[in-house]
Amino acid sequence: MSFDFNFYMHSFKELVGIFAEKFNVPHFPAQPATLYEPGIYFLGIAGKRIRPVLCLMGNELFDEIHADAYHVATAIELFHNFTLLHDDIMDKAPLRRGFATVHTKYNENTALLTGDVMLIVAYEYLAKVSPQMLPRIMHLFNRTAREVCEGQQWDMDFEKRDNVTLEEYIHMIQLKTSVLLAASLKTGAILGGASEGNCLHMYEFGRNLGIAFQIQDDYLDAFGDPEKFGKEPGGDIRQNKKTFLLLRALEVANPQQKQELLRLMQENPEDKVEKVLAIFRECQVDAWARTLKQSYLEKAHQELEAVAVTGTRKQPLLELADFLVAREH
Amino acid sequence: MSFDFNFYMHSFKELVGIFAEKFNVPHFPAQPATLYEPGIYFLGIAGKRIRPVLCLMGNELFDEIHADAYHVATAIELFHNFTLLHDDIMDKAPLRRGFATVHTKYNENTALLTGDVMLIVAYEYLAKVSPQMLPRIMHLFNRTAREVCEGQQWDMDFEKRDNVTLEEYIHMIQLKTSVLLAASLKTGAILGGASEGNCLHMYEFGRNLGIAFQIQDDYLDAFGDPEKFGKEPGGDIRQNKKTFLLLRALEVANPQQKQELLRLMQENPEDKVEKVLAIFRECQVDAWARTLKQSYLEKAHQELEAVAVTGTRKQPLLELADFLVAREH
Repeated sequence: MSFDFNFYMHSFKELVGIFAEKFNVPHFPAQPATLYEPGIYFLGIAGKRIRPVLCLMGNELFDEIHADAYHVATAIELFHNFTLLHDDIMDKAPLRRGFATVHTKYNENTALLTGDVMLIVAYEYLAKVSPQMLPRIMHLFNRTAREVCEGQQWDMDFEKRDNVTLEEYIHMIQLKTSVLLAASLKTGAILGGASEGNCLHMYEFGRNLGIAFQIQDDYLDAFGDPEKFGKEPGGDIRQNKKTFLLLRALEVANPQQKQELLRLMQENPEDKVEKVLAIFRECQVDAWARTLKQSYLEKAHQELEAVAVTGTRKQPLLELADFLVAREH
Repeated sequence: MSFDFNFYMHSFKELVGIFAEKFNVPHFPAQPATLYEPGIYFLGIAGKRIRPVLCLMGNELFDEIHADAYHVATAIELFHNFTLLHDDIMDKAPLRRGFATVHTKYNENTALLTGDVMLIVAYEYLAKVSPQMLPRIMHLFNRTAREVCEGQQWDMDFEKRDNVTLEEYIHMIQLKTSVLLAASLKTGAILGGASEGNCLHMYEFGRNLGIAFQIQDDYLDAFGDPEKFGKEPGGDIRQNKKTFLLLRALEVANPQQKQELLRLMQENPEDKVEKVLAIFRECQVDAWARTLKQSYLEKAHQELEAVAVTGTRKQPLLELADFLVAREH
């Protein structure tokens, strides 16, 4: 092991490959197969593994990647999949990443218990962290896990409410999405021996990046190029999903536009998406979203800049941030 | 704090009171109330808090009760309630201890997410354990938590199978019920500074006691005195629940008795309970169950006897064991 501070830095893509290999091991015992086989199936519908890689990147910004970082990254990925598994039950989602969800392929009880045990196995990986690091990592992981549940609850509550404000929506998004990205980076930084201040900057980098990411997500669902986006936009509009765009439109629309929006949401006509998009454009919600996204992205950049490490070491994280938020798919 | 080894030992009843007071604090933040209020409601339908008290007793057998023991006891009680909350969803149970279950009083999504967050809060309590003790406690807690999920899965799988053996049933009961009692005692012993060997004896004491407890449970549901039992016996029989008694009867019955049992289970006649009980008695399943319970209770006693601590210190645990397994309600 070298203590040279100028050790080789991996790109995001390289770390994705490295993590994929580390993660590609059995995480569960063989029996009862009725409990664990669905978990293996779900982990096999591989996502982008962004969160565990953020943990490795947070670590590598300050030091060579520590064995503990792989344990925590694995715990984070298992935790993330636990939330998806249970969210799919709650949202009655038939598909996840184009594949049948666990409660659809098996049944709800299986999805419930497989999710539970996946969370517990996440903690089994956490417990492998060096004793001197464990309490701090556990504390951050637990708080984040609790906040993600709170975010899901707010999201479900908001579906039943007509008076959700943009501020409340941002608070929900932070809990549901941002804090896990933030905590992934921060746990990596902690394990890399970063100072309290640098750890905080990493957390804030992730938190702001997460919000920018969600704005981008909402934006693409409405204004994305179908060819690059890979699917017909307007899904959120058809479902009356509360998004950055809809909440903003409801706030700034004139009485006539607002009435028309509410009518479209109520009546679900054939040309709903087209007409809602027209109102969004009239209210300049598209330009507003691009500006808002940019401002969160800039805040994220400022936080990363404030980390007391030479600029060249930050290149991979900057590239990842731009990739995540400028993506068109 | 005194280091006198002959410090005061609390009775089970006293520890129930002490734990109840410690546990009677807010475990959750205020918001979102839609997430946490159901958790408060469920914890309010108080059970006997046997598991956390076993942790305190396991601790006090070796030392004065350590602050860490209260953290672990609280984590264990929250974990236990998490499992009940999710089991109630899976079993579609309308009532728990005579009160509406969370998924009945609120809805399934709430019960699911409230259970999730209760498990995470359990880990928040665990994280308060002294750093030098944390890894060992985490390791045992995690393994136990995973095993309890496995037990629930086997239990659900067995409902759909006609060929469950007594051996498989005992394995399931160990996972679903015994290991948490065993781990409660062992975590207490670990925190009390007990040797590896003594910790193992404590675990085995709890494991055997748990099986004896379940035999008693099955026995009372069939042969219990309705006045002492508090409800009409025969619930398990009416539901064709696989119990120690039914599985044994199916193993030892002659072809005619077995055919009659299967017919009763199939046809559910008015006098089903009465007739099944008659077959149980003909097969001497009642005497067999009493003997089997006694043999597990004796194994439990042997394990406790093997703990290298003066006999008088073991009195509260012996009383608890006899109370649990000799109870008629």
